[in-house]
Amino acid sequence: MSGSDFGKILKVTTWGESHGPAIGAVLDGFPAGMALCEEDIQKYLDRRRPGQSALTTARKEADRVRILSGVFEGRTTGTPISLLIENTDQRSRDYGDLKDCFRPGHADYGFYAKYGLRDYRGGGRSSGRETAARVAAGAIAAKLLKEMGIRVMAFARSIGPVEIEEKNFDPAHILLSPAAMPDIHAEERALSYMKECVAKGDSSGGVIECRISGLPAGIGDPVFDKLDACLARALMSIGAVKAVEIGDGTGVSRARGSENNDAFCLDEEGRITKKTNHAGGILGGISDGSQVLVRVHVKPTPSISRAQETVDEQGRERELVIGGRHDPVIVPRAVVVTECMCALTILDLMLSGMTARADRVIAFYKK
Amino acid sequence: MSGSDFGKILKVTTWGESHGPAIGAVLDGFPAGMALCEEDIQKYLDRRRPGQSALTTARKEADRVRILSGVFEGRTTGTPISLLIENTDQRSRDYGDLKDCFRPGHADYGFYAKYGLRDYRGGGRSSGRETAARVAAGAIAAKLLKEMGIRVMAFARSIGPVEIEEKNFDPAHILLSPAAMPDIHAEERALSYMKECVAKGDSSGGVIECRISGLPAGIGDPVFDKLDACLARALMSIGAVKAVEIGDGTGVSRARGSENNDAFCLDEEGRITKKTNHAGGILGGISDGSQVLVRVHVKPTPSISRAQETVDEQGRERELVIGGRHDPVIVPRAVVVTECMCALTILDLMLSGMTARADRVIAFYKK
Amino acid sequence: MSGSDFGKILKVTTWGESHGPAIGAVLDGFPAGMALCEEDIQKYLDRRRPGQSALTTARKEADRVRILSGVFEGRTTGTPISLLIENTDQRSRDYGDLKDCFRPGHADYGFYAKYGLRDYRGGGRSSGRETAARVAAGAIAAKLLKEMGIRVMAFARSIGPVEIEEKNFDPAHILLSPAAMPDIHAEERALSYMKECVAKGDSSGGVIECRISGLPAGIGDPVFDKLDACLARALMSIGAVKAVEIGDGTGVSRARGSENNDAFCLDEEGRITKKTNHAGGILGGISDGSQVLVRVHVKPTPSISRAQETVDEQGRERELVIGGRHDPVIVPRAVVVTECMCALTILDLMLSGMTARADRVIAFYKK
Amino acid sequence: MSGSDFGKILKVTTWGESHGPAIGAVLDGFPAGMALCEEDIQKYLDRRRPGQSALTTARKEADRVRILSGVFEGRTTGTPISLLIENTDQRSRDYGDLKDCFRPGHADYGFYAKYGLRDYRGGGRSSGRETAARVAAGAIAAKLLKEMGIRVMAFARSIGPVEIEEKNFDPAHILLSPAAMPDIHAEERALSYMKECVAKGDSSGGVIECRISGLPAGIGDPVFDKLDACLARALMSIGAVKAVEIGDGTGVSRARGSENNDAFCLDEEGRITKKTNHAGGILGGISDGSQVLVRVHVKPTPSISRAQETVDEQGRERELVIGGRHDPVIVPRAVVVTECMCALTILDLMLSGMTARADRVIAFYKK
Repeated sequence: MSGSDFGKILKVTTWGESHGPAIGAVLDGFPAGMALCEEDIQKYLDRRRPGQSALTTARKEADRVRILSGVFEGRTTGTPISLLIENTDQRSRDYGDLKDCFRPGHADYGFYAKYGLRDYRGGGRSSGRETAARVAAGAIAAKLLKEMGIRVMAFARSIGPVEIEEKNFDPAHILLSPAAMPDIHAEERALSYMKECVAKGDSSGGVIECRISGLPAGIGDPVFDKLDACLARALMSIGAVKAVEIGDGTGVSRARGSENNDAFCLDEEGRITKKTNHAGGILGGISDGSQVLVRVHVKPTPSISRAQETVDEQGRERELVIGGRHDPVIVPRAVVVTECMCALTILDLMLSGMTARADRVIAFYKK
Repeated sequence: MSGSDFGKILKVTTWGESHGPAIGAVLDGFPAGMALCEEDIQKYLDRRRPGQSALTTARKEADRVRILSGVFEGRTTGTPISLLIENTDQRSRDYGDLKDCFRPGHADYGFYAKYGLRDYRGGGRSSGRETAARVAAGAIAAKLLKEMGIRVMAFARSIGPVEIEEKNFDPAHILLSPAAMPDIHAEERALSYMKECVAKGDSSGGVIECRISGLPAGIGDPVFDKLDACLARALMSIGAVKAVEIGDGTGVSRARGSENNDAFCLDEEGRITKKTNHAGGILGGISDGSQVLVRVHVKPTPSISRAQETVDEQGRERELVIGGRHDPVIVPRAVVVTECMCALTILDLMLSGMTARADRVIAFYKK
Repeated sequence: MSGSDFGKILKVTTWGESHGPAIGAVLDGFPAGMALCEEDIQKYLDRRRPGQSALTTARKEADRVRILSGVFEGRTTGTPISLLIENTDQRSRDYGDLKDCFRPGHADYGFYAKYGLRDYRGGGRSSGRETAARVAAGAIAAKLLKEMGIRVMAFARSIGPVEIEEKNFDPAHILLSPAAMPDIHAEERALSYMKECVAKGDSSGGVIECRISGLPAGIGDPVFDKLDACLARALMSIGAVKAVEIGDGTGVSRARGSENNDAFCLDEEGRITKKTNHAGGILGGISDGSQVLVRVHVKPTPSISRAQETVDEQGRERELVIGGRHDPVIVPRAVVVTECMCALTILDLMLSGMTARADRVIAFYKK
Repeated sequence: MSGSDFGKILKVTTWGESHGPAIGAVLDGFPAGMALCEEDIQKYLDRRRPGQSALTTARKEADRVRILSGVFEGRTTGTPISLLIENTDQRSRDYGDLKDCFRPGHADYGFYAKYGLRDYRGGGRSSGRETAARVAAGAIAAKLLKEMGIRVMAFARSIGPVEIEEKNFDPAHILLSPAAMPDIHAEERALSYMKECVAKGDSSGGVIECRISGLPAGIGDPVFDKLDACLARALMSIGAVKAVEIGDGTGVSRARGSENNDAFCLDEEGRITKKTNHAGGILGGISDGSQVLVRVHVKPTPSISRAQETVDEQGRERELVIGGRHDPVIVPRAVVVTECMCALTILDLMLSGMTARADRVIAFYKK
């Protein structure tokens, strides 16, 4: 089975390997008539681009996106938007040991077991590089959401043991921070923690949080396509993510109902709202009008420079030293990926929601 | 959009409301020729049935399943298996306050916002009762997995603050335990904790763990249909689940790469295995041959007998007291639901995996 | 793979075998709030019911439909509508020869080759009886279309060599006619032709035409989900259909462009229309506002009472005599099936069309 | 909704407009390990390329395909195969009248009604040029089918009134014939018929036939994904196709059951076969081991050089003269498109069929 596509009404298909000529995405089902240019997308890709600080790989990728279809005279046409990013820095180096060794913490072994062969160059299809294609597509979804007053904002909540503090929270700092942290003090501590990791040839995990505001109540489908179920799949499909939490997340398991339930009330303008938001804006899989709150736990980069034990394709035990250029922590660059996967998920479910009521269907076609 | 179906090759569609005449599932794409009778399914449903202990609602549901299609002369035929469970205890009671009030912690408000109306009887489609249909379908998937030597075993890891201890782990106790716990000592403490909760008109959350053993390496599709992404969606689609963890889960965010990576090695018989299993049996979205380990965090039952503040459909603030019969903790009955959702997910991806290699496709049709 | 479901936003899944306890359908994705009762559906099923004239099998099936979910207080709720039809006349007869013989013109052999076993009673899943489930679901779609002013009307265009004449066309006669013909004179000739067929132990083919009026321009998706492509799949999936034509259909292959092109013009009220309708209301896969016109060619009932040569499961040549009760011509009962498959197809594409424009998406969520 | 993808296990997504920078396809779900190079695909594209004879447009398109992903060291890797074809001859001409006129026989008006805007250059997304992407993807499917001994062969059966004769049938001539006809005599007559059409500023329709040999019995899914239903959708989704026939096709409507049924018998080697093949190799939607036979009726090219009446976007009646370069008959170039859509359909259903039996699933994973 395929598995390279995501979404039902708004469908993104990504393609491409780490060291092939290019990677890309096709975004099908995007509504016609929205203004769109390459720069709208490039802004997002630039946030993901490597080579920007000590936290990221030295690999240089211009990551320039080209729109090959679906936009005419500056507007989307309702037809598939094909996005292409050339792989400009596919250094033709010697893969030596890596070529037939299964790198610990990577997809290598499972991939080989499934397909009987694999593109050993930089993880091939399982490389984090694939997420650039998601970002390109997600940037387009985010733009339409923004036009509807919906803001999707992700940031690094923690790197290793260093966590941001709510009192220092400054959203404006996220895009400036090499750590993608909204807390300048935590950022500083995170950077020195990472320096220590790198010095030891090691890597670190972390937590990304995403907050979605302005989402109306009623988004998400009741059973298998619950908003949180779709978000969970979307985010767990990012390579290094090992846990997804909604609202209070793992905290709910120790809570009591009287603590965990959020009371409904009216705001000053008489609109329905909630006194608290333990639920993270989702009840029974449907948005409740509060801020949607998701957290993902990202594992430490598996490519570390220390020697590791492993096995090769011939079934021999080997010691492996991974050279090359690797992010010592995945979190900062995965922040925009998280944001984009959330945007794609939400817009798809919003499009789905347009057909939920018979009277609105009838009214639509009376136009 | 629909959203009541799950799976790609093996597709389950559930239908039915809490207080309608019946609920059911259609399981399409199940392979032909497996022996199957109603009792195979009933065993699983009985594990989910309410009214079995102080931990569960007093609502009595026989939950007898009928197979209406897809089985002939005791074997599956490859055609859709229709499963029907009548709602025998749909007590025609007075819904009074509940009728137009949005219950805190429930889907009521979001559902109403989406559809403009709702079946107010017991949550309607958003009731936990819908999961009985999933269990019926999942039992069939679990049977075929068992014939392939794959065992899916879920249990209650914790209830409120009470957690099992690995040293007391006794899998045989799970099916005997009213708490679905594999640790008789923890079970005892959990029961007294729950008694206290009930006495206070309150409810509790908990953690369910699922261990899948015998799964070969190579299951899962590389990008959006990663094994963990599919499991995350499957499990987050269970109403009360607010977090999903794979392997070390949330623990990875504080770990270093040198700790988190699992070294590959050879076992005594020269087969590839791993020295540790922080990854929970999944690397890059593909199974690695180790035990797959998933944990879900379940929120406390939102229906509690204490008075709660809320709002009604007319936009008035109200005080709500929920009477009726409710599980004070969802975990014990959700254990088998977790198991069944895992079984459906894994079998679907295993069927998908059969087409992964050209030489095997060619060999298949040479038969 | 499954294959028992149809549609993307509005999804129908059918289940059930000819001689099992029941057949049914689950219709998911239907908009909430439309008034619906069992009688709305029963009217359609009654048009398909056997035992109504010399043209149809003597098998008696009450074909009473029950709505098991998705309707509350007389309105659809947006959740899956489960429809159940019990098989009341599953005569427990001796299948003798039929049991392991592959009936000519039936799915028996292919089904056996695929699954390795089969339900030999009356064709099992491949029985025309499966279409009752489609009719039940399609009746619901047709009701919403009617509320939007869209009329889907099918009828028998010909039976064997007897064709209706446009000058006698009386739509009111279709529901009265045992042949489902809108021409009382052709009907008479068709009935005597069928008498002759039956006397010879033979059966006849025929043509069903479906006209869809009131459909706005702009329905259908440009590439693979063209309106005509979706209709073709929908109609070719009815067991006995061997050809599907749109508009002039097979006639286009001998036509010239200057004849086949329909000129656009304005009607009296200044709205865009076409001078002719060779295209059958569909251009480039999208409706053009004219009447949609589809024709399907239905093969003669393969179950005939004459002796036939065949082979059995053991690979022996055999002579087969099919007893039992069979329609000598499939067309009259398949008329309502055609209508219902068209209704399901069109409504699904209309729901899809609601998300086609960004400005309408934005306006929808401003509400 | 999207609609730019086709297939379930083997999924092709096409993108691109007639006059954009490029068109392409992503083929996801193709099995790993098959040898593949660009030349394998180019051979098919060359059969579709314009500018080859008097029968086709003078527009020159090199139509060179590039494989951007999914192939490593000469073999498919099981990951999406991205195919890119640059539009080299996008002559920047004056669209004048065409720009806001709805061309008769084209998708222009429906497209505009749906999306509110359109790429007026050469039909944009609705251009026949989109089929080049299908051919590129289909060539890959055809290669794997060929390795399984399955041959998909399409040809022009008729052009206007000129039909091939079975007695002259020479498959070797198809690839040599500018008309894609397997009958050198019919070809000659077709060419002079077309000369006459062109002289009159007119165009012609025709019939394409596709014969699939070597397909085992048992391919196709019983209900909505019948082999013929899938083929019908696949072929009707080719822009100019207005009718699809299987086997005897429209002929069945006048036939009797005793004529139309194909008797099963044994061949010399004791294998099950049929004495005749009225069914065109498909019974009840499943292949029966005989040659699969499909015919499509193609309308005359709607772009003709004669003046035509139409309406523009401003709702004014206009006279339109279409200049530019257009095939006077679509058939010859659509032959390879037909072949490729059949190949994609069949391979997808064959992959699906691998999961049909429980014992084979178990055996597969015992490996």
